Amino acid sequence: MIGIDWGTSSLRGFRLGAGGMLDAREAARGIMTVPDRRFEPVLREFIGDWLDGGEDRILMSGMIGSRQGWVEAPYIPCPAGLEEIAAKLAPVTIPGARAFIVPGLSGADAQGVPEVMRGEETQILGLGAAEALMCLPGSHSKWAVVRQGRIAGFTTYMTGEAFAALGAHTILARSIVKAPVAAEDFARGLDRAAEPGGLLHHLFGVRTLGLTGALDGAGARSYLSGLLIGHEARAALAAHPERGPVRLLGDPGLCDLYATAIRRCGGEAAIEAGTAAAAGLMRIGELVSWN
Amino acid sequence: MIGIDWGTSSLRGFRLGAGGMLDAREAARGIMTVPDRRFEPVLREFIGDWLDGGEDRILMSGMIGSRQGWVEAPYIPCPAGLEEIAAKLAPVTIPGARAFIVPGLSGADAQGVPEVMRGEETQILGLGAAEALMCLPGSHSKWAVVRQGRIAGFTTYMTGEAFAALGAHTILARSIVKAPVAAEDFARGLDRAAEPGGLLHHLFGVRTLGLTGALDGAGARSYLSGLLIGHEARAALAAHPERGPVRLLGDPGLCDLYATAIRRCGGEAAIEAGTAAAAGLMRIGELVSWN
Repeated sequence: MIGIDWGTSSLRGFRLGAGGMLDAREAARGIMTVPDRRFEPVLREFIGDWLDGGEDRILMSGMIGSRQGWVEAPYIPCPAGLEEIAAKLAPVTIPGARAFIVPGLSGADAQGVPEVMRGEETQILGLGAAEALMCLPGSHSKWAVVRQGRIAGFTTYMTGEAFAALGAHTILARSIVKAPVAAEDFARGLDRAAEPGGLLHHLFGVRTLGLTGALDGAGARSYLSGLLIGHEARAALAAHPERGPVRLLGDPGLCDLYATAIRRCGGEAAIEAGTAAAAGLMRIGELVSWN
Repeated sequence: MIGIDWGTSSLRGFRLGAGGMLDAREAARGIMTVPDRRFEPVLREFIGDWLDGGEDRILMSGMIGSRQGWVEAPYIPCPAGLEEIAAKLAPVTIPGARAFIVPGLSGADAQGVPEVMRGEETQILGLGAAEALMCLPGSHSKWAVVRQGRIAGFTTYMTGEAFAALGAHTILARSIVKAPVAAEDFARGLDRAAEPGGLLHHLFGVRTLGLTGALDGAGARSYLSGLLIGHEARAALAAHPERGPVRLLGDPGLCDLYATAIRRCGGEAAIEAGTAAAAGLMRIGELVSWN
């Protein structure tokens, strides 16, 4: 079959066979780049050769199933695993192909505030863990608890988006220079997150430490990153005191930063290799009656 | 004398006499709007008639004394009161006038991270309190402790700038409509700030409560405001457990929101009326040897 992970900003395709992944490709054709929701021509351009080669089974996950996507695949409530998801796939009409979209998941935190995810459920279940605490860092980081192979619940932190917005659209932009992460200043930010005053106060320190020369431009950016990831990691670890190592899934550079953060904040971390989205699409696809 | 409060985005002028304020005016001519630091023509255009009327004493406070301003008036360390400030005024050369700029203050929080203010010191000392916990809400909210008539120390929260950046440059922009504050949703945000999970998690609730219809566009904006002000107020009140009422100084609408927030978070609040900047400039001006 053909697996498609179609997010807001990127489009990934996987040619999947009985032995695993046969081919993979990626394009900067996220759903926000597609005018008038004309998704079919974009998909044909992207994997038309695979369809021409005789494969007609397509399974898609990610924001392509949102209200702004091709067909809305309504959220299904947690706890949910492969079976619940496979039972609620949304069919998509593509001439000459059989196609479905994976639904996202909904939940609520301990105080009843709603939670949603779309795409991450496929990656999490792709890992095949029976019991796990997982973290998928990013614009909207997700921390998910897997119990008996199903996603029991999850929590979102807007860390990546806050980093981008605060670093570019506040006075902190004057202190920051885009550069690779400086490990020592990143660690200072992580430690600062444990101190009193709260995030809104800690943010101002990025400016004052820059003004006094205690941080240079690259250091200020690393410190801000450490502050935000530190606040996330401390809150998330506090919410899951009894769990084992946090299993990290996602961009390798970001997973490295999160592993450093989690360990420095007193937790254990393990980075998962491989393409979890492809594995998840394969597992869900195996439960589909394609006829 | 003539008092000038010259900030980043606005310029305020006060004609001050023995009996108090004789006249006041305001223009959207903050220092960021003045090309090539040509401040003198802007000032002459703004208060030339007062100079022509025979007054030649000018005292200025605010960002006009920063590195981006007219003349840099270096920060002086806390604790500092009227005497320390009056002793460190920075002279400015203006033909036909005698002019000085008030220095800003520097400090450090309990963990040694630097703090700076510029302009707020004049407002705080304008109030003339001997002992007080004061809050000046805004882009960079300042909480200051006054002891024996001097500013003993202060703490900054980037609440206003975070509100603007997060509300306009993240996914939350899709949930938010610019509208007057809805009191009930503002209060929900304040209460949410007391719950576990931290600010980065709480932010995502603005989105999900909007998606599920629990908040409309105006409500989402009010809730975000409550979240941020609630996080600030709770952190600041926790840092000053023994203080009496928080005395609020600044924009009346914002002071109202902060008074609501402080009371709901278990503190006492009192809103100060009057033009504190003018009063502060007057008090400092009385200590200047104008000859």
